[in-house]
Amino acid sequence: MPKADETRAHIIEKTASVFNKKGFVGTTLSDMEAATGLTKGSIYNNFENKDEVALAVFDYNLKKVNDLIRKEMDKHHSAKEQLISYVKIYGANFSDSPFTSGGCPILNTAVESDDTHPQLKKKASNAVTAWMNKVANLIEKGIKQKEFRSSINSKETAAMIVASIEGAIMISRVTGRTDYLKSIMNSIKKIIEDLE
Amino acid sequence: MPKADETRAHIIEKTASVFNKKGFVGTTLSDMEAATGLTKGSIYNNFENKDEVALAVFDYNLKKVNDLIRKEMDKHHSAKEQLISYVKIYGANFSDSPFTSGGCPILNTAVESDDTHPQLKKKASNAVTAWMNKVANLIEKGIKQKEFRSSINSKETAAMIVASIEGAIMISRVTGRTDYLKSIMNSIKKIIEDLE
Repeated sequence: MPKADETRAHIIEKTASVFNKKGFVGTTLSDMEAATGLTKGSIYNNFENKDEVALAVFDYNLKKVNDLIRKEMDKHHSAKEQLISYVKIYGANFSDSPFTSGGCPILNTAVESDDTHPQLKKKASNAVTAWMNKVANLIEKGIKQKEFRSSINSKETAAMIVASIEGAIMISRVTGRTDYLKSIMNSIKKIIEDLE
Repeated sequence: MPKADETRAHIIEKTASVFNKKGFVGTTLSDMEAATGLTKGSIYNNFENKDEVALAVFDYNLKKVNDLIRKEMDKHHSAKEQLISYVKIYGANFSDSPFTSGGCPILNTAVESDDTHPQLKKKASNAVTAWMNKVANLIEKGIKQKEFRSSINSKETAAMIVASIEGAIMISRVTGRTDYLKSIMNSIKKIIEDLE
């Protein structure tokens, strides 16, 4: 990797959890300097502005989440078990989870940007839409494989699963109570099992 | 109302949607001056600092949401219809809704404050806990009135309903698509109907 790319990657990696915790507006240049050990000049030699860092960080955080999901999903073949991968990953004690320093990047970015930052909003919107489509496709696969009933509305069920996962993360993080997370993940697991 | 209380109320009312849209960190003194038509001196004559305004604004926004829910709920007697009040209120086209300028204040405040602002976090945590308790109590009432099956886990169901409402708001606001909101509210309505 050329040196400039390495520095870029270093900046993204080191500021990823800062942006996820403090948000786009809340992350200051000082935070970025402290996280990277670089000066303002060095950071802005590699990125045009804070927006450009934040957008790259969103992609980085999203890829981390998606890689984790994919890794769990690849262990399974049935649509049901693949869907339950979400319950396993998001239901894990989030303080132990490698990607959740600051919680779900889609949720954080969506809520912060929806009234304020069109480019970040677009990225969060695309990410949540792709996620719902992925879940709907898994349900469709399950219907085709005769695992699930053909009467299932795949899109409606997918939206409900994604919404409740995101709500669960919000509730458990703000209250500091993992029992809420486990309880909601349990309800989602039942929804998936009831597709049969 | 004494003049100082009137000014305080004016500041809270006028900055309520600004804080809900831009967040605590994103709301600047200039925003507060523009929203209220008051000078810095006048604002900070009535509030110690931005924190104090933000905390009062959270209470104001929460009361608006709760008043709206209560008003809809008071029209009904059965636990089922009272629970469906949430679906009606949150499923309404949110751009028309009087309290959703900027989306759900509990969601916005929870996501922004969870890693950054302990006092706001505490308020959001209390609000979401009270909400889940309220829903669980309504389910318990329905079980006592023999509307709902006695095997229902009221707390687990309440957490799932609140999580999916909050997730639905996030998804529909970031994507700008009310069909997702309607679809998820439809799933929540089915959960409520299945309690019978």
